[in-house]
Amino acid sequence: MAMNWLAQPCVPLNETARTSALARQGQLTKPPGALGRLEEIAVQLAAMQGVEQPVMERIYIGIFAADHGVAEEGVSLFPQAVTAEMVRNFARGGAAISVLARQLNATLEVINLGTVSAVEPLNNVRDERIAAGTANFARQPAMSAVQCAAALQAGRDAALRAKQQGAQLFIGGEMGIANTTSASAIACALLSAAPESLAGPGTGLDGAGVSHKAAVIKRALELHRLLPSPAGIGGEGALEVLRCVGGFEIAGLAGAYVAAAQNGLPVLVDGFISSVAALVAVRLNPAVREWLLFAHTSAEQGHQRVLAALKAQALLQLGMRLGEGSGAAVAVPLLQLACALHRGMATFAEAGVSEQG
Amino acid sequence: MAMNWLAQPCVPLNETARTSALARQGQLTKPPGALGRLEEIAVQLAAMQGVEQPVMERIYIGIFAADHGVAEEGVSLFPQAVTAEMVRNFARGGAAISVLARQLNATLEVINLGTVSAVEPLNNVRDERIAAGTANFARQPAMSAVQCAAALQAGRDAALRAKQQGAQLFIGGEMGIANTTSASAIACALLSAAPESLAGPGTGLDGAGVSHKAAVIKRALELHRLLPSPAGIGGEGALEVLRCVGGFEIAGLAGAYVAAAQNGLPVLVDGFISSVAALVAVRLNPAVREWLLFAHTSAEQGHQRVLAALKAQALLQLGMRLGEGSGAAVAVPLLQLACALHRGMATFAEAGVSEQG
Repeated sequence: MAMNWLAQPCVPLNETARTSALARQGQLTKPPGALGRLEEIAVQLAAMQGVEQPVMERIYIGIFAADHGVAEEGVSLFPQAVTAEMVRNFARGGAAISVLARQLNATLEVINLGTVSAVEPLNNVRDERIAAGTANFARQPAMSAVQCAAALQAGRDAALRAKQQGAQLFIGGEMGIANTTSASAIACALLSAAPESLAGPGTGLDGAGVSHKAAVIKRALELHRLLPSPAGIGGEGALEVLRCVGGFEIAGLAGAYVAAAQNGLPVLVDGFISSVAALVAVRLNPAVREWLLFAHTSAEQGHQRVLAALKAQALLQLGMRLGEGSGAAVAVPLLQLACALHRGMATFAEAGVSEQG
Repeated sequence: MAMNWLAQPCVPLNETARTSALARQGQLTKPPGALGRLEEIAVQLAAMQGVEQPVMERIYIGIFAADHGVAEEGVSLFPQAVTAEMVRNFARGGAAISVLARQLNATLEVINLGTVSAVEPLNNVRDERIAAGTANFARQPAMSAVQCAAALQAGRDAALRAKQQGAQLFIGGEMGIANTTSASAIACALLSAAPESLAGPGTGLDGAGVSHKAAVIKRALELHRLLPSPAGIGGEGALEVLRCVGGFEIAGLAGAYVAAAQNGLPVLVDGFISSVAALVAVRLNPAVREWLLFAHTSAEQGHQRVLAALKAQALLQLGMRLGEGSGAAVAVPLLQLACALHRGMATFAEAGVSEQG
């Protein structure tokens, strides 16, 4: 399967719109800069949407679900069956992201890229299973090249559907028992970091569990000769890391981020696993970075390091660590209020308010 | 004017509801604690509302506006006329808080406690002017005891109106040129802190401006013999600090917070000035503290110290420094989403999802 599309150019941001938006911010009835990061967001979205006054009404949320062979190494507290069970919970409206999507009036789509067990047909769940989970990457590569390409393409397809539906924001989420192990392994390889410095408790491992997880990651990185990182040499290295220790849902997210940037669709990145996918996407195509906003800093310890590597400062710090795109969904009102303030506030001239002396 | 009401008891939180809400959080389909502070908020609101599943739909925002005699010391970049001009801007819908109130479908009321110039009758603006601004506290007490009592009572009246309207949340905002100088002076006295450590740029002073502001505060604290703090001895001391270096709008906020707690109405505190008013309220009646949630950490340097004194950890850190209740309004969706998740998520049993092994 061809992966040439990954390197195709991204839409450039609109600097004229950015300049107009900045000028407008300077005229609104408030001291300059007094709305802090809400001003930055409005100006960034203006440059992304190519208009002085951006809008943020139609939100697409795509949840990529898949299982991980490495779960058999005992790196998660939850049984693997939970991945498929949560796919049902997403569809039936009981998961956190289901509730948030309803509150935001957002489109919610679940893309099943490879649960171990098949899931019966469900509303808003797409069955795009590539395999019954990845292979155990502590013993062999997680995916074949063809599987990796298929997962990236599935993400691209999701971003294109979002664009076609007129979405103004793309949020990707993930579900997959053991996927913090996969994400940590990718981050270690791409950042040349020690597993102990990036592995965290995930859904709630204790200290011994985290140590075991780090040891599994270390073994895998040695097996696949991923330390020192092959990624310094560019996209080919990142792709190999993704194939060897990644997951279908992480590849799906990475493909979606690249395609969103190539189609001028702003992305709001969720937590640790999504940020690792964003790091992969930016290694594959550096111009993707301009299209990424970062929603929150997760409680998972590796997240801050990944954000720093992306030169990203997240909007929220609420100690969340759920995944599913939940942290990104919680940050959506900030984007909406930033746009509403930018559009709806009066200028000093309109309001007859005196400017500073 | 009687101030005995300030010491009357606050409504106790409902510990049965808190326990039920905590138990529910443990059954929802997510790893325990994975929603971070959103879980805490839902549980806190349950204890405040006395129900297992709190709701957050009807928001009251009251903006207290007043002028400050100390403006004549040259402590603000903006002319004093801006206070009244912004009252008009609030009423006509052009201010940040006007836009936010519309987005939140919140009630917005402006309480004019003392602009220098009278303001013509306007929709949703109450003319409760106590005087044409406070006196210049660098030369004499800002208020008489009667004026201070009237401002506290005006705040109480606002909280009672909010309660009568069925509000589920009270947000207070403020507008008053030079009011960061007043708030900083109060905080210095109540926390026995040096003016240089608490005075900040307000609407945008440069370094020399901040130094001048700190010198004005220092002079005032010496004039009124407020350092070392008389507040260690309890509410009487805090009241004297408020009278000598406070403002009508800050007293209004403090009175509103006390009355909200006495009437079982949760409060979401905005930024620096509002937090100083909250500190006064808690010194006047320590049980008020239980009813206060803190929205954001302002860019104004003194805010972190005031939050620490209140043992408060704010929800947002967005570099905002506008006042008007704007930071609190921006945090409202977090409270709403916390409640929606708490109420709307399925339990493990309902969803047929396996719990951790």
